[in-house]
Amino acid sequence: MQHFFNPKSIAVIGASRDEGKLGHIIFKNFFENGFKRLYPINPNADEILGIKCYKSVLEVKDNIDLAVIAVPAKIVSQVLTECVKKKVNSVVIISSGFSEIGEEGKRMEEELKGIISKNKTRIIGPNCIGIYDAYSKVDTLFLSKERCGRPKKGNISFISQSGAVGSTVLDVFYNMDIGISKFVSYGNGIDITETELLEFLGKDKSTKVILAYLEGLKKDGRIFLEKVKKIKKPIIVLKSGKSDKGSKAVSSHTGSLAGESKIYSSAFKQFGIIEANRWEELLDYSIAFSTQPVPRGNRIVIITDGGGFGILATDEAERLGLLLPEPSEKLKRSLAKTMPTYASLHNPIDLTGDATAERYKIALKECLSSKEYDGAIVICLFQVPTVEEKVVDYIIECKKFRKPIIVCSVGSDFTERQNKKLMANNIPVYPTPERAVRAFHALVRFYK
Amino acid sequence: MQHFFNPKSIAVIGASRDEGKLGHIIFKNFFENGFKRLYPINPNADEILGIKCYKSVLEVKDNIDLAVIAVPAKIVSQVLTECVKKKVNSVVIISSGFSEIGEEGKRMEEELKGIISKNKTRIIGPNCIGIYDAYSKVDTLFLSKERCGRPKKGNISFISQSGAVGSTVLDVFYNMDIGISKFVSYGNGIDITETELLEFLGKDKSTKVILAYLEGLKKDGRIFLEKVKKIKKPIIVLKSGKSDKGSKAVSSHTGSLAGESKIYSSAFKQFGIIEANRWEELLDYSIAFSTQPVPRGNRIVIITDGGGFGILATDEAERLGLLLPEPSEKLKRSLAKTMPTYASLHNPIDLTGDATAERYKIALKECLSSKEYDGAIVICLFQVPTVEEKVVDYIIECKKFRKPIIVCSVGSDFTERQNKKLMANNIPVYPTPERAVRAFHALVRFYK
Repeated sequence: MQHFFNPKSIAVIGASRDEGKLGHIIFKNFFENGFKRLYPINPNADEILGIKCYKSVLEVKDNIDLAVIAVPAKIVSQVLTECVKKKVNSVVIISSGFSEIGEEGKRMEEELKGIISKNKTRIIGPNCIGIYDAYSKVDTLFLSKERCGRPKKGNISFISQSGAVGSTVLDVFYNMDIGISKFVSYGNGIDITETELLEFLGKDKSTKVILAYLEGLKKDGRIFLEKVKKIKKPIIVLKSGKSDKGSKAVSSHTGSLAGESKIYSSAFKQFGIIEANRWEELLDYSIAFSTQPVPRGNRIVIITDGGGFGILATDEAERLGLLLPEPSEKLKRSLAKTMPTYASLHNPIDLTGDATAERYKIALKECLSSKEYDGAIVICLFQVPTVEEKVVDYIIECKKFRKPIIVCSVGSDFTERQNKKLMANNIPVYPTPERAVRAFHALVRFYK
Repeated sequence: MQHFFNPKSIAVIGASRDEGKLGHIIFKNFFENGFKRLYPINPNADEILGIKCYKSVLEVKDNIDLAVIAVPAKIVSQVLTECVKKKVNSVVIISSGFSEIGEEGKRMEEELKGIISKNKTRIIGPNCIGIYDAYSKVDTLFLSKERCGRPKKGNISFISQSGAVGSTVLDVFYNMDIGISKFVSYGNGIDITETELLEFLGKDKSTKVILAYLEGLKKDGRIFLEKVKKIKKPIIVLKSGKSDKGSKAVSSHTGSLAGESKIYSSAFKQFGIIEANRWEELLDYSIAFSTQPVPRGNRIVIITDGGGFGILATDEAERLGLLLPEPSEKLKRSLAKTMPTYASLHNPIDLTGDATAERYKIALKECLSSKEYDGAIVICLFQVPTVEEKVVDYIIECKKFRKPIIVCSVGSDFTERQNKKLMANNIPVYPTPERAVRAFHALVRFYK
């Protein structure tokens, strides 16, 4: 598996001089990312971006660690056969036009499986966008950087059966300046499937959180679950094709069987997988796990400067079964010392519409240093005129309590500047009270 | 009610020279917005921003249409008595420290009610941020424009029991360049309540959609529902305090009783109110209603360039009971003429990862001009390299079919530029397939 993510030498089969072609963009990614032992394969070109072109991998004298195939479906079997002859162990097949289009495609997939059946060659794909590794800079994405940003280095890894779901998540992570480790779009997954990829990421040192977008499982579900159970990292799964029509759409997308949604959901729960029910939750939860410690219980305190947002957060917390204990009398007394009489010292703690950074500081310190709470939801609405910008520093300082802190804050420029600073310091910020609470709940689910 | 939104002369009681004080910001808003018959009331100042200051409204010779009170709670009754004597019919009381803080506050509220009981003076508030009217420029918000943007003119009106929920929505609308007509935060609502405000907005010519954030009803629920039923505009309500803890938090926020959540939800449904279940839905639904025609049925077509997003949208549509009919054979034949063989001509229609603007144009035109669909969800992921920017113009052109079009698109700069253009042309764009479908479903609920 290492050659997929850390190849020393790479062949791009179907590399093209035409800037609009997939094969050009993929080759250019490797070229620009500084790979030196790089071999464009194209029988109709002499050189691409100044690099000598070969008619076949068999012409290359160097060993090839990784081959990326981006040629029409009907000649994939031929070039794959050449890869096998060349003893290329790792092959990413970008080309589409296989089982997702019907019987003829299925037959061609079987042919590919036959070609690698008795040797060491392994395949990711076909019908995928392949790999992006923020550390090694392997990048088989045929999407221009203008349209699909590449996230910086971080600790989230992500596998996706769908290229589009994958690329939107990457582009949004890039936009939010959130780092990732490895991304793999494996499409029809005729050889390497979600199970192997998850096992690999489970052992990968730069991966702390694993995301997966699944349409259907490629192999036996029981095996998948048993293997995944052994992984000690948080795994967040978005499973699509849960409805009848959705399930039908799955089969014409990646040729998978979507299966029974209820069976999936209860199996995920049983095997410690955190299920995301919406695209947004995939991102929301990953940001929480990427930055926050796992809580040791489900007792949260909500601290707010907006009463309405506090109530909405409370409603969501109760819906999800999170506990919102009242502060003890002792804790209330410590809080009361420095709070105005009209502040509400229940839970939510309402610092009211003339809240100051100082009030946040005290409320956070007293609650998180006590044994009464396992973490905090901090609703900080900067529309409130009295909240000074230094509240951001106070919140960041509270990381020392080693309990999860999730912030809810939403608005225009002024707010966005504060939120960026929080995010850059590993404090996750959500635009709605409900999403903040759901993210906290995801952390609690993993603790359980 | 007209004097609240279109006053010719205004007194700001508690106007201050101190830039940090609420009374200063409120006075400055009116001053900067060009109101000429403007009277600051403050016994300790001679002038504010160059305008002559009065010790009491009784000293002002001009008639006063609107008085805004921003003085400490304990002297509100005195200045209100003076307003009554001066025959000011419309009074906004910003001051807090009333029923939300307990018994003493409740007593003071009763006193205020007594003062206006036998005359024409009407009150919005106390414990509120008051009014923002994008047309008349009445602006009692004590929030600086740097922290809380003021939306441009538009057709959405919004009443909110919570100032913070109100100000976040305004700031986000401003940030998204979405226009509004009238905003009212009515806080403890001791006189004018949600019922009267909704009736007024129901008749207001510049209001097409009404939003309401409610914690508890101020008066009899049956009367509220009967009155609201007569309003022919879409009314979107976010009701908080639905959980036990949330309901308790409501009483210490605006002194309301939150009541039974299930009773509310079924009553809303029965009386044609569209309930938002999350803060985000309040915004999402309002944008759809503000821009889109009401569909004549619930048969939608999903058109996508990303298979995964299509499936997620399908799952959500089925969850909500929207219909996703297959295109008829005739429609399929028209589509097939110009689509590649690997495009999936079911529903969702998958234009695949090499989709072009032309394919969107044809799919949209054929589906929306047919009698088979009541509207379209257009998933347009610009990470797909082949989709040209002109797809935006094609989508905008399809407004001519007078059926709702909801777009789902998400990503970084490139995508955001396209989305801005769509939004500026009244095509709503949502960042997730689920939110796009839910917004469509809100339109269908109103049709029903």
